[in-house]
Amino acid sequence: MAIPSAAFSLRVVVRLEHRPGTLGRMAASIGDHGGNIRSLGGFEVHGDAVTDEMVVDCESVAHQEQILAAIEAVDGVTVLHAEDRTFAMHQRGKIEVACRFPLRDVDDLSMAYTPGVARACLAIRDEPARIHELTIKRNTVAVVSDGTAVLGLGDIGPGAALPVMEGKAALFKTFADVDAFPICLTTTDPDEIVETVIRIAPVFGGINLEDIAAPACFEIEERLREALDIPVFHDDQHGTAIVTLAALENAVKLVGKSLWGLRIVIAGAGAAGVAIAKILQSVGIEDIVVTDRQGGLHPGRQGLTSVKQWVADFTNPRRQEGSLAQVLRGADVFIGVSGANLVTSDEIAQMAPRPIVFAMANPDPEILPEDVGNEGAVIATGRSDYPNQINNVLAFPGVFRGALDAHATTITEGMKIAAARAIAAVVSDDDLAEGRIIPPVFEPRVADEVAAAVAAAAKVDDVARTLPAG
Amino acid sequence: MAIPSAAFSLRVVVRLEHRPGTLGRMAASIGDHGGNIRSLGGFEVHGDAVTDEMVVDCESVAHQEQILAAIEAVDGVTVLHAEDRTFAMHQRGKIEVACRFPLRDVDDLSMAYTPGVARACLAIRDEPARIHELTIKRNTVAVVSDGTAVLGLGDIGPGAALPVMEGKAALFKTFADVDAFPICLTTTDPDEIVETVIRIAPVFGGINLEDIAAPACFEIEERLREALDIPVFHDDQHGTAIVTLAALENAVKLVGKSLWGLRIVIAGAGAAGVAIAKILQSVGIEDIVVTDRQGGLHPGRQGLTSVKQWVADFTNPRRQEGSLAQVLRGADVFIGVSGANLVTSDEIAQMAPRPIVFAMANPDPEILPEDVGNEGAVIATGRSDYPNQINNVLAFPGVFRGALDAHATTITEGMKIAAARAIAAVVSDDDLAEGRIIPPVFEPRVADEVAAAVAAAAKVDDVARTLPAG
Repeated sequence: MAIPSAAFSLRVVVRLEHRPGTLGRMAASIGDHGGNIRSLGGFEVHGDAVTDEMVVDCESVAHQEQILAAIEAVDGVTVLHAEDRTFAMHQRGKIEVACRFPLRDVDDLSMAYTPGVARACLAIRDEPARIHELTIKRNTVAVVSDGTAVLGLGDIGPGAALPVMEGKAALFKTFADVDAFPICLTTTDPDEIVETVIRIAPVFGGINLEDIAAPACFEIEERLREALDIPVFHDDQHGTAIVTLAALENAVKLVGKSLWGLRIVIAGAGAAGVAIAKILQSVGIEDIVVTDRQGGLHPGRQGLTSVKQWVADFTNPRRQEGSLAQVLRGADVFIGVSGANLVTSDEIAQMAPRPIVFAMANPDPEILPEDVGNEGAVIATGRSDYPNQINNVLAFPGVFRGALDAHATTITEGMKIAAARAIAAVVSDDDLAEGRIIPPVFEPRVADEVAAAVAAAAKVDDVARTLPAG
Repeated sequence: MAIPSAAFSLRVVVRLEHRPGTLGRMAASIGDHGGNIRSLGGFEVHGDAVTDEMVVDCESVAHQEQILAAIEAVDGVTVLHAEDRTFAMHQRGKIEVACRFPLRDVDDLSMAYTPGVARACLAIRDEPARIHELTIKRNTVAVVSDGTAVLGLGDIGPGAALPVMEGKAALFKTFADVDAFPICLTTTDPDEIVETVIRIAPVFGGINLEDIAAPACFEIEERLREALDIPVFHDDQHGTAIVTLAALENAVKLVGKSLWGLRIVIAGAGAAGVAIAKILQSVGIEDIVVTDRQGGLHPGRQGLTSVKQWVADFTNPRRQEGSLAQVLRGADVFIGVSGANLVTSDEIAQMAPRPIVFAMANPDPEILPEDVGNEGAVIATGRSDYPNQINNVLAFPGVFRGALDAHATTITEGMKIAAARAIAAVVSDDDLAEGRIIPPVFEPRVADEVAAAVAAAAKVDDVARTLPAG
């Protein structure tokens, strides 16, 4: 069921005739038609009519049109202008390249550009590590995509993916002051993607891979990690895995179980599912079953990709076979990174007592929270309109902030686990509740705490770079 | 001879004892040692001493050290802190990626990122030209270099080239509000450079090639122009050519000659020299001789690169052979894009009356203006410390601004000539003088005038793109 949201909101400029009830009739009509008035300008009438501006949340494009028609139909109201706020926000793009200081005269130019810039160039030529000191490299991350697995939209290509990559860059800046720039590639060939990223790497202090389809994403990340001396991080894998682990650590406290003894079923063997399985193993959880459309992955399955084969060989210690519904029986935890409506209330009812249900498929979860029905269950989704949103934005800004602050050469398993623990720790034991197992997206401490934990873990794992004295 | 400049300036914090003459002795000592005090903080003494800050222009790193030692040696003065302003300016880089609007809450996120961003993605998927409307593409230029011909420093590699590319991006923003981002490539192979730029092109509305060595630069630009539907512009070629043509158009007015009848010698057959020859031909000038280290290029020369062969075949109609000095005899115009001290006063004296001498080698021109000695000569250089600086920054910001405003698919010869004429026209006939044949770099009208002329020429040349209604 669609609900009115900012994503389909309208900015509407209306002319209201100055007669009793005009505003009330308009507001009532909007409400009657399912629109939600989010903002309304103040006004003071001097004359026959007044012009006012309002924002109305709608459910869809069709609903926007219904709302506009409904407003027009109110006696005494005229729509002067209407605009879709989401499209207005994307006009001309969401990010820009700014100067860090003004260039006011030829003397400024002679330092920032010729001839003075040659001194910075020669310093780097003579001591290459000074690129981390004298350029944007130390704070700049490439957001790289081939457009093959964009949100839930699939393979829409590199151009259509650009709004997402810009948005990601905007989040990097907003949450962690990281300068991120979108790189959208016209190739989907793993060899060519790896080669291209290596060729453009000098400018960047980190590579965030984004919305690249499995299984290519695994190979691309692995090869870039080997080839480059800067962090490479496929957010769809590790960002999701980190936030899931954070949520799980807090959820087990609520249900009174031990992390290590959990029986976990992960629905979805794509980028996120595999990465979640790996991070859970890294913290010592053994009983993990990953399912794809054919059911649980186990060593007897035929024709698996190499990544699924790895999952089949190294998870599922009890060699569970069968459908998702079958392997879910008696499990403590369901983690869904698959598709809408994959699980029923009855299947949840057959899990262990006080199950943990993370139904993270977007925009429609594997099961809606209101359908779980199981008393004592701890539920999370990927959506902002339910409690406990498992959102990567809790992880990736702080992860890269910490990695860049430490001048890390890579991102280790230890840094990811440290990030998860830092996110979990932002929710104090006093605050911890079924509706609050992870912090909200705009909780201001999260990125700082994650960054500090990640930078510290980089030093422990000996991947922090020591820069020349300068 | 070095002169004190901002490029080697120091910011110095000093403690001055409150005794008569301390400030005077310090200032005198700095002056005696050839330092130039550019700024001094105001102060008011309350007590035994005062802390003050000043900026001192020096000539070199060694000179900076002499100046600091001289300050320290003044009785009653202590240096508390000293910093090289050029290196300070380059710390952490010169540009950043900023959000064009704040992301304040989950509703902003739901428009800029998921789920609302999917609407912009789908709009582009369904109508690809909307990428020019709904993303940064319409205002974003890649500054691409392989680091093989950086300033006068030669092949210093992509990392050491980054400070220049950042500087270029800062100039793009400052002068024309173009968002430019540096792309420094780890390959110098033309095939790989072309391939890489094509692969990353979706994000960009234009490609500015920078500091790529000849002859590879010619092939790379040509192939990218053919492959891409956005402007591709090698600034070292065309930026220089545009500003040179602008200066020449105004210079001929002063010396009372006709542009079309000029005899022109271009010293230097690299990127700039070849492009200058081509743009001069485009405006109808025929008598052009280009020289390289072996002298004038003519069809009898053996073993030429394909670009030099083109120059030999299609310039030099009088088939002049011999050294630069020989071909310069009787010429009206000398255009130097070669190296320091290549031409003598005597050779200039053998040019036609009222010669035009553009000695543009950087940082040391082919002949210093004070050595030209020829009465009535019109002189320009590439330097900011002489009149008539032929600086690309007069061209490239406005050229790309105009091309982006017109949504141009390429940059035509007509657009370049329009840019040159617009630059020349900023100097009114009343203002025109031997010391002012082109506008100064910070003349605020230049970029706007160039942009308007370039956009208009794009329409005339039918390379302006019409965007969908949106």
